[in-house]
Amino acid sequence: MKEILKISPADIEKKSFEIITEELGENQPLPELAPIVKRVIHTTADFEYAENLYFSPDVIEKAKEALKSGARIFTDTKMAMAGINKRTAEKLGCTVECFIGDKDVAESAAEKGTTRSSESVDKAAGMCKDMIYVVGNAPTALIRLRELIDEGKIAPRLIVGVPVGFVNVVPAKELIIQSGCPCIVARGRKGGSNVAACIINALLYEIDKSRGR
Amino acid sequence: MKEILKISPADIEKKSFEIITEELGENQPLPELAPIVKRVIHTTADFEYAENLYFSPDVIEKAKEALKSGARIFTDTKMAMAGINKRTAEKLGCTVECFIGDKDVAESAAEKGTTRSSESVDKAAGMCKDMIYVVGNAPTALIRLRELIDEGKIAPRLIVGVPVGFVNVVPAKELIIQSGCPCIVARGRKGGSNVAACIINALLYEIDKSRGR
Repeated sequence: MKEILKISPADIEKKSFEIITEELGENQPLPELAPIVKRVIHTTADFEYAENLYFSPDVIEKAKEALKSGARIFTDTKMAMAGINKRTAEKLGCTVECFIGDKDVAESAAEKGTTRSSESVDKAAGMCKDMIYVVGNAPTALIRLRELIDEGKIAPRLIVGVPVGFVNVVPAKELIIQSGCPCIVARGRKGGSNVAACIINALLYEIDKSRGR
Repeated sequence: MKEILKISPADIEKKSFEIITEELGENQPLPELAPIVKRVIHTTADFEYAENLYFSPDVIEKAKEALKSGARIFTDTKMAMAGINKRTAEKLGCTVECFIGDKDVAESAAEKGTTRSSESVDKAAGMCKDMIYVVGNAPTALIRLRELIDEGKIAPRLIVGVPVGFVNVVPAKELIIQSGCPCIVARGRKGGSNVAACIINALLYEIDKSRGR
């Protein structure tokens, strides 16, 4: 097994980020965006994200403010919820919730002929108007978020809009970009619950680091 | 919102697979591998997986036999555990477990100077020799699996080896490919817990479909 380096997990992460920085070459992201862009590449080994990620004006500052003040974070999938570093989130007073498996959500989705992802947005909106909403899978969640924003019923402090897929995903992401809401979006087809979680983690780790973790 | 198709979730999946099949063009996977290859592309929107995925001889048949007989499935991450369709797994009598957050695992990893992912493999090996082991994140889990296979202490019925990353990931995957153990591996840097879960789900859905779900 001589090809395997003896290296601690913390050093693996450090070395990985060095490799990513090196391979980005002349395409280095702006300094304030770099921790997110590089962590997404670290999570996917996919350098396309250096081009794909859209950041609305001042979104990093706004997102960090929201997280520092103990935001309610909602996710569209249990995978995204599982991927968010809860210990770091909880230190800031943030909570992470996902309603996709809830019985009431399934029932009202069936009644209305909508998706559970869309109904989960409604359930979250009934609890909190200035949430952080994290979408790794369901374009219908993004579409419903935009509707509720346009109706003035919610004012999310951050939307992470990175569903993956081939149908409705691209236009749903554009709806969020055009919503005027602070957002981080992976343009195009790519994304996923892993990407969604890692964007929140990148923000959490930056806050943690600035406080001297 | 005229670009958004009105389409049910089931139809979205169907249409997505049609798009994937069309865009694969002349690179169609072998019929028995197609459900997995296409579902991985569906999960990632990344057509590189049409080239990356390695399947050991007869692995589909062996994996299905293991799942049908109610395998114990262990994952290296909570995200991979969260992503596996538990309802379908449980119908076959399979269980899904992940020890990465366990206190005893953290303690023995600290004592031995190994990783929690490696210790989780030891914990699983103490419970079951012919498990299915699903790795979406940790090359150290694959390295430990290979060691225990070589020592004759375990004989996994399937290893899904799709960690993502820049350090030790590529050689760790090759260790599994060369182990002689039934395996599905994403060669190269790419992979992830989402890919890991979706490979198990693809197998589960094929079994379910053949039984007329």
